[in-house]
Amino acid sequence: MIRADGNRLVHLANGQIKTRPSLALAARLAELARTLDALIAEHAPQAAAAEEVFVNKNPASTLKLAQARGVALMCAARADLDVGEYAPSLVKKAVVGTGGASKDQVHAMVAMLLPGAKIAGEDASDALAVAITHAHHLASARRGIS
Amino acid sequence: MIRADGNRLVHLANGQIKTRPSLALAARLAELARTLDALIAEHAPQAAAAEEVFVNKNPASTLKLAQARGVALMCAARADLDVGEYAPSLVKKAVVGTGGASKDQVHAMVAMLLPGAKIAGEDASDALAVAITHAHHLASARRGIS
Repeated sequence: MIRADGNRLVHLANGQIKTRPSLALAARLAELARTLDALIAEHAPQAAAAEEVFVNKNPASTLKLAQARGVALMCAARADLDVGEYAPSLVKKAVVGTGGASKDQVHAMVAMLLPGAKIAGEDASDALAVAITHAHHLASARRGIS
Repeated sequence: MIRADGNRLVHLANGQIKTRPSLALAARLAELARTLDALIAEHAPQAAAAEEVFVNKNPASTLKLAQARGVALMCAARADLDVGEYAPSLVKKAVVGTGGASKDQVHAMVAMLLPGAKIAGEDASDALAVAITHAHHLASARRGIS
């Protein structure tokens, strides 16, 4: 979660939603939805964004990720948020300057762009990078240079 | 939707939820959730079941399917329904007798097992086949021969 005042970015929150691995997939997805609904209600964001998902070397974990992503998109849309979707390479290019940037590079750049943020791991810095990308995109669109 | 009285199966409803293709994915997923929530509230089922999803020749459509499936599982779990998950081959074996059965064979057998049902296409007969498989599974489990 970030706030964008023009070009100025302010860190609000970041984290990872961890559901109980002992639960069945459907119950974990319901837990994810409950947590996201609560976060959206608490922070009342004006927009949301998510990384696009692709099938990689591990199809089983890709499918799990896609099911969780579906729930996340649904929670955002149900709260009337427009959802930006960005390919991972585009996020890296927007934040680091190159589509092939490493997770470490993304983390370092996010930490620099959002001074004071305590970042809860690589997935959280990836998520903040997506938020930053979306904020830039929306700002460019407002200036008519999207 | 079926009702299972012991070994007797009764057709209640079947169909396909079609969301507007003009909407963004997130909005379509929210529409799917709203429709499923309404159906669950109307019919108050005691259990739910879904086919397992696998990555096939078309990764993009598999990922779309997985995101929709995540929303469906979440709606069921949020309504406190246990969700059975079955591989397509297992469903075909349970309903037709062979894991390699065609869609036509599944449709014909479902129509026979649920006389009077007007089946809204192949996806709907597949869904009814999953419901029948789950009903058999639950009945067997109750008899202790799962």
